[in-house]
Amino acid sequence: MSYLSETVTLNNGEKLPLVGLGCWKIPNEVCADQVYNAIKIGYRLFDGAEDYGNEKEVGQGIRRAIDEGIVKREDLVVVSKLWNSFHHPDKVPVALERTLSDLNLDYVDLFYIHFPLAFKFVPLDEKYPPGFYTGKENEAKEHIEEEQVPILDTWRALEKLVDAGKIKSLGISNFSGALIQDLLRGARIKPVALQIEHHPYLTQERLIKYAKKVGLQVVAYSSFGPLSFVELKNQKALTTPTLFEHDTVKAIASKHNVSPSQVLLRWATQRGIAIIPKSSKKERLLDNLKINEALTLSDDELKKISGLNQDIRFNDPWDWLTNEFPIFI
Amino acid sequence: MSYLSETVTLNNGEKLPLVGLGCWKIPNEVCADQVYNAIKIGYRLFDGAEDYGNEKEVGQGIRRAIDEGIVKREDLVVVSKLWNSFHHPDKVPVALERTLSDLNLDYVDLFYIHFPLAFKFVPLDEKYPPGFYTGKENEAKEHIEEEQVPILDTWRALEKLVDAGKIKSLGISNFSGALIQDLLRGARIKPVALQIEHHPYLTQERLIKYAKKVGLQVVAYSSFGPLSFVELKNQKALTTPTLFEHDTVKAIASKHNVSPSQVLLRWATQRGIAIIPKSSKKERLLDNLKINEALTLSDDELKKISGLNQDIRFNDPWDWLTNEFPIFI
Repeated sequence: MSYLSETVTLNNGEKLPLVGLGCWKIPNEVCADQVYNAIKIGYRLFDGAEDYGNEKEVGQGIRRAIDEGIVKREDLVVVSKLWNSFHHPDKVPVALERTLSDLNLDYVDLFYIHFPLAFKFVPLDEKYPPGFYTGKENEAKEHIEEEQVPILDTWRALEKLVDAGKIKSLGISNFSGALIQDLLRGARIKPVALQIEHHPYLTQERLIKYAKKVGLQVVAYSSFGPLSFVELKNQKALTTPTLFEHDTVKAIASKHNVSPSQVLLRWATQRGIAIIPKSSKKERLLDNLKINEALTLSDDELKKISGLNQDIRFNDPWDWLTNEFPIFI
Repeated sequence: MSYLSETVTLNNGEKLPLVGLGCWKIPNEVCADQVYNAIKIGYRLFDGAEDYGNEKEVGQGIRRAIDEGIVKREDLVVVSKLWNSFHHPDKVPVALERTLSDLNLDYVDLFYIHFPLAFKFVPLDEKYPPGFYTGKENEAKEHIEEEQVPILDTWRALEKLVDAGKIKSLGISNFSGALIQDLLRGARIKPVALQIEHHPYLTQERLIKYAKKVGLQVVAYSSFGPLSFVELKNQKALTTPTLFEHDTVKAIASKHNVSPSQVLLRWATQRGIAIIPKSSKKERLLDNLKINEALTLSDDELKKISGLNQDIRFNDPWDWLTNEFPIFI
């Protein structure tokens, strides 16, 4: 009962499965097992990040699967993301070394800039991952010190790590159009992927069109919309109707005899977007992996779902930091 | 009957009048006279651009006023904007020299990057201003060749011209938040002003808040909304109700016994935003200049007008170029 996702070929010739496992918020105590089990089921793409605080456990799950001969390293696409506190060119290799050490790997397949935000460096032994750490206890309410490093300086440090063989491909996450365009003007090594918040309340038609035009594979996070943010007590998420209970989504799910979550995921992959849902249930993991076999939505259904767009963004630091970072305005 | 506008002090200590004359679309044949007459009335800020195609005439109007002793050069704030085709660091001084030569001046007070768009250089003797010129006759429908120059490279070329005394202050126009933030991380000389489309259908609350926080004076263009774009046959503008006829605006104008246009301008200046309306009528020019004396809107009125926001942007190249430039997504 193992199954492999379709893959897409990135602009540098590397492959990316259309379905991967998102590692955000997988609890440390179950993370190694979940990654190991996902590999057994057929998952090959693991979307992690320094900020998720579970790279050691992701690495343990991967190591176990490799050691047991279930998979080879080169079959996997292991993803991480450079955290905001490591944008200074001197700190970019420090951060990657920590990630590789935590993962117990020699290279990552895809390394994103997590946000176009540059924070002051936080020493690894002071707090790791530092998150929105201000050096004070009452985090995230306090003002965060910025590092005056433009994205292109960070990018050039990342390019050197590609040259050194420690990163196969570079990506960007939470970048808006104008910033992508400016990065492309100066990048020697092009990004291969753009990871963004993407669900029927935030369809981002133009950004996706632009990304495709310039050869960036779009990867969706928070495919279920508010759901991912309810547990973080995000106010917008708490007051926005869940997509699983939305009449349009429920009607389409019922017609195809699938779950609302499958409808939401298939809507994304039919738009050519890679998905990285998370689940702790084995059946759900398999359902997600086989999403493209499970159903095909009609053009009319796709349109109806896209019609739910309200440009609601849940993952905007403006809403929950005193700094009011302008990355989405 | 001459009157001077209030000024604001920019982050480099220079002054900017809160009301200036916008030179966009002033026809060449009347431009020198209008600028000359505006100076006589009391205008000191002239918001021009290479792209407006009338810098020679703006210069003639200024020269006449100076020659007649009505005003001194140092009393004026003469503004121009670097066009997209001159973003390459080698071409930035070429463009400014042309502007200074057309204006017949030794320096400009404020020089903006007109758009965060970099086009291939068009030789001055081939077409000037080049606009959205593609080298073919059917302009603006064809694909425009981009120049692979990041904003910061263009900025550094501009900084050298400040060092050389040919520009007093630098500004940015049509920049979104993420791009402003990235520019600020790398700029040696900070921009002093951000010029953006701004009217009650596009209130840009967050962008304005951010600009203020980082010390950028916001300057509004197209303060009357769709009106500026109707003559350009902009489809969105043609199908959006004019603000002059909007019930909310009309009711407030009637209450204060002023024109709807005065309401729109005062709404902007009460938000701390500089305005650059254009008019060919002497009385209107004076009305605009004295806007802060003419009326004061109540908080409730300001809120009502801001409540008309619909995030409708008329000046977005995405809508009218095949390139689909992502500067506002």
